[in-house]
Amino acid sequence: MKIYDSKTAPNPRRVRIFLAEKGIVVPYEQVDIVSGQNRSPEFRSKNPMGTLPLLELDDGTMIAESVAICRYFEETHPNPPLMGVDAKDRALVEMWQRRMELEVFIPITQVFRNCHPFFKGRIPQVPEWGEVNRKWAVDRLAWLDGLLADREFIAGSRFSIADITALCGIDFGKVSDIRIQAEQKNLTRWHAAVSSRPSAKA
Amino acid sequence: MKIYDSKTAPNPRRVRIFLAEKGIVVPYEQVDIVSGQNRSPEFRSKNPMGTLPLLELDDGTMIAESVAICRYFEETHPNPPLMGVDAKDRALVEMWQRRMELEVFIPITQVFRNCHPFFKGRIPQVPEWGEVNRKWAVDRLAWLDGLLADREFIAGSRFSIADITALCGIDFGKVSDIRIQAEQKNLTRWHAAVSSRPSAKA
Repeated sequence: MKIYDSKTAPNPRRVRIFLAEKGIVVPYEQVDIVSGQNRSPEFRSKNPMGTLPLLELDDGTMIAESVAICRYFEETHPNPPLMGVDAKDRALVEMWQRRMELEVFIPITQVFRNCHPFFKGRIPQVPEWGEVNRKWAVDRLAWLDGLLADREFIAGSRFSIADITALCGIDFGKVSDIRIQAEQKNLTRWHAAVSSRPSAKA
Repeated sequence: MKIYDSKTAPNPRRVRIFLAEKGIVVPYEQVDIVSGQNRSPEFRSKNPMGTLPLLELDDGTMIAESVAICRYFEETHPNPPLMGVDAKDRALVEMWQRRMELEVFIPITQVFRNCHPFFKGRIPQVPEWGEVNRKWAVDRLAWLDGLLADREFIAGSRFSIADITALCGIDFGKVSDIRIQAEQKNLTRWHAAVSSRPSAKA
């Protein structure tokens, strides 16, 4: 078993933190996204989407998509639970994970993809769309700050995959100058707490 | 228990098909998205995102996000399984569900949101971004056609939530003139098969 990884991209970090929280050790193999190794025919034979991270099982099965990889390890290593503990809780954690993805992580990565020189010539960039997403992301950070007024973590009282998605999205915002504002006390408190967990350095 | 639903939007259809496949009957309450009932303070007190569908449990818990709602019913009514049968399979179904969402459903809905008069004045539209997504969606339908050459359903030999996401996305493409092409024989065969299931009319 191994995971194709990139230390500089935000999605692979989601899986690294998830595994660190569970205390699971899997060998990582770095794939160089700057030179486009992830878009090479060899890598695309493993994952036609060319995305990272990618989990290769011992039987040769390839599992792409960060949350699908996390699902695999949640099933095989249930403790500590990071995706909920019963039917209702699992649905609520999934709701919050998706909200963090759709409202925070994706808008922030859309700013980078559409506005940053890194993607120039790699994908069709639409800077106007990037700016729409910048405003969206900034609005959502303010919303998150309010949400965190009466709860310790995004999905409630327990650290979950929703916190991981939010952390990786927000930290990746720095490269596009999207940051938690000083007056956002709840979000600042949450960010300090999740960043101080050993997993955040994974 | 009830589900806030819209007969005209693509996301609520995902949940209706999922429940029909499982033979689960839940009362639906229609929410009028044309007049903006989903963005009213009353509805936002139930779901601050203003999105549909929304599941209200008997204890008052609100579960938003189509896939989170499906997760709840997969947990409470495991048969027939629509999200995989063991750890590896659940991860693979999740991978395919997400690919159908990220590569097919979302690009198709982005065309509608950014190019269609319905959303004019409701959200900041970026038609150029819509056109990028139109090309993306058309490319992905060709990719899907190739994928379906050697498998009956999107995630393999079993009908799953990945088929539901793909079907709802592709059918919603019609309003933006994104359609399966006549030469895409595998995709045409798959679409006819999944459309002929009774659940497709839910």
